[in-house]
Amino acid sequence: MNPTISINDSHRLQVAPLKIPTRLLLGPGPANAHPAVLEAMNTSPVGHLDPAFLGLMDEIQSLLRYVWQTDNQLTIAVSGTGSAAMEATIANATEPGDVVLVGVAGYFGNRLVDMAGRYGADVRTITKPWGQVFSLDELRTALETHRPAILALVHAETSTGARQPLEGVGDLCREFNCLLLVDTVTSLGGVPIFLDEWGVDLAYSCSQKGLGCPPGASPFTMSPRAMEKLQKRQNKVANWYLDMNLLSKYWGTERVYHHTAPINLYYALREGLRLIAEEGLASYWQRHQKNVEYLWQELENIGLTMHVEREFRLPTLTTVCIPDGVDGKAIARQLLNEYNIEVGGGLGELAGKVWRVGLMGFNSRPESVDQLIAALRQVLAK
Amino acid sequence: MNPTISINDSHRLQVAPLKIPTRLLLGPGPANAHPAVLEAMNTSPVGHLDPAFLGLMDEIQSLLRYVWQTDNQLTIAVSGTGSAAMEATIANATEPGDVVLVGVAGYFGNRLVDMAGRYGADVRTITKPWGQVFSLDELRTALETHRPAILALVHAETSTGARQPLEGVGDLCREFNCLLLVDTVTSLGGVPIFLDEWGVDLAYSCSQKGLGCPPGASPFTMSPRAMEKLQKRQNKVANWYLDMNLLSKYWGTERVYHHTAPINLYYALREGLRLIAEEGLASYWQRHQKNVEYLWQELENIGLTMHVEREFRLPTLTTVCIPDGVDGKAIARQLLNEYNIEVGGGLGELAGKVWRVGLMGFNSRPESVDQLIAALRQVLAK
Repeated sequence: MNPTISINDSHRLQVAPLKIPTRLLLGPGPANAHPAVLEAMNTSPVGHLDPAFLGLMDEIQSLLRYVWQTDNQLTIAVSGTGSAAMEATIANATEPGDVVLVGVAGYFGNRLVDMAGRYGADVRTITKPWGQVFSLDELRTALETHRPAILALVHAETSTGARQPLEGVGDLCREFNCLLLVDTVTSLGGVPIFLDEWGVDLAYSCSQKGLGCPPGASPFTMSPRAMEKLQKRQNKVANWYLDMNLLSKYWGTERVYHHTAPINLYYALREGLRLIAEEGLASYWQRHQKNVEYLWQELENIGLTMHVEREFRLPTLTTVCIPDGVDGKAIARQLLNEYNIEVGGGLGELAGKVWRVGLMGFNSRPESVDQLIAALRQVLAK
Repeated sequence: MNPTISINDSHRLQVAPLKIPTRLLLGPGPANAHPAVLEAMNTSPVGHLDPAFLGLMDEIQSLLRYVWQTDNQLTIAVSGTGSAAMEATIANATEPGDVVLVGVAGYFGNRLVDMAGRYGADVRTITKPWGQVFSLDELRTALETHRPAILALVHAETSTGARQPLEGVGDLCREFNCLLLVDTVTSLGGVPIFLDEWGVDLAYSCSQKGLGCPPGASPFTMSPRAMEKLQKRQNKVANWYLDMNLLSKYWGTERVYHHTAPINLYYALREGLRLIAEEGLASYWQRHQKNVEYLWQELENIGLTMHVEREFRLPTLTTVCIPDGVDGKAIARQLLNEYNIEVGGGLGELAGKVWRVGLMGFNSRPESVDQLIAALRQVLAK
């Protein structure tokens, strides 16, 4: 003890036990976690090298391969939120000087640009107005022009609600000898994904959207082609926490200690994935599509329109145009404070122009739509 | 939907709901979380910009200042485990070419060396046999020799159980105009710390040890001196996820979205910290000291000895010498499988030579000691 120094109590808050309102989370995420997932999370932690935990890690790996439809050996959950998994793809794939071509049609495309720059990439961009997507022809032209080492695209742009079609993009990348890196944060679970069929080399996601879990443990996968680039690199990955050379030895058969995993979040993730495997991906995807179509119809019924062309709308996240003369922020605040319903506002180009409404995982239910529409009717009528 | 591609069910594991044995976690961490903490964690998530959540973030900041005994404005929890918080200190403080001097007397000193190298530091080391600590004179000589921009020390070496005294080190660092960076992963909560009194500029910790929470949201703090270095740097921080320029705008009054925080882990952390503030730091520290002294006495009573000199032993983690002729790994396995008690093995120089026994947070109780000693008596007698 240090009897010479006295304890300073100026920051010793005396607060009551946690009281948090119960919200219906229909924004861009987090969505409400499935009750069974919360229950699983509540299990007392064990050690990160406990045989019981190592077995659970193997199950998570297999189930992630299932929801992503990939055979990639290196398919894991990183110990951070979706942005950490995003950074993990960039950090491990990018070597200083690499040309990284990013398709930017929203906020998260820009984030990829920022991250790739930090890892020394020669970053190039192609852009589209927010809410639109790139055609195969546009991508071919861009690959011809920039000859990148990596093409990075956002499958589901959380800021716009647009779904970037990926069929044929992997073949194109092979033709131009580059890796295909894809953001599936708002698609995994809720939107059909066939990583291997589409030739995706690196992908990342999160737990708190389509998978119906709390945030904090985030799916990451890389293909044998991406692994080869990693193994050939001259320098260490410039990020210790997310270095797949180290992480693969913890998730692989060696079980070399790397960091203390967020044990309880892995309990949760395992349960979220288990529930999807039990229901089956086809049913899970169809449910998301069916419920979002119900949402679109009901929104139209109360006179609202959608920002994204129907063909490219995500089943998980819808951008709803704020009618002229309506204060979008005030409406969102009212929904939260008076109805305990969260919807998101617009970002960047769409700030002030749209609400973002998510129907993801456990929240993709007709009841969510009914509850939101009833509240919207009332607040918009005022 | 993609009717042309059929879903591959080869990774569709059909598994039962989670069943995890209940362990008494007396290794180097995680420790068992306090039951009230698990209960708080189980609250349904809200959004990361929900006013209810932002209020909770403020409470966490204040309570972290209390347990660390600092007034640092930038005191937050990063959205990853302790290693992420460690990397956050290095990433934000280190500019390419900076001389970073690391005191290495265990595994985590070496990890700091590895990390600092990845951020372009000119890394120098001073070393001690594992289990020993550096004197002020030795530190002065090293500062004179290396003239570093940053001196990095491990307050509580999780691999050895040694406590590095920090009194006077901050003054020394000011004399030599360098920042003092300190690992408090295994000390925060359980070991007296006076960050401001000691002149520490950067510190990090974890949630799953002295604070009695599950792992995954990790304390980080930096002083105004360290902030000044950050603000003056020429290049972006080479890590987007842990960039304090961005994170401080989310934790500060601006509330600019950065990433989706692991909401439920913050619920847990808030409760863990709240319980400490309720009990009071002095009592909390004394409890750790009293219980570990009871452990030492009981270990001696069954003929075991400790690796670290008494003066420098941590109250949170004890390295116990494995007696000659005893298979340490086999004993640990037996404790786990037959008694549901986890203790850790040795790392690096101490591999095969010690067990690591933690009494941290909720687990720092006489009952933990009794349960361990009773089991050890039996397995060692066989």
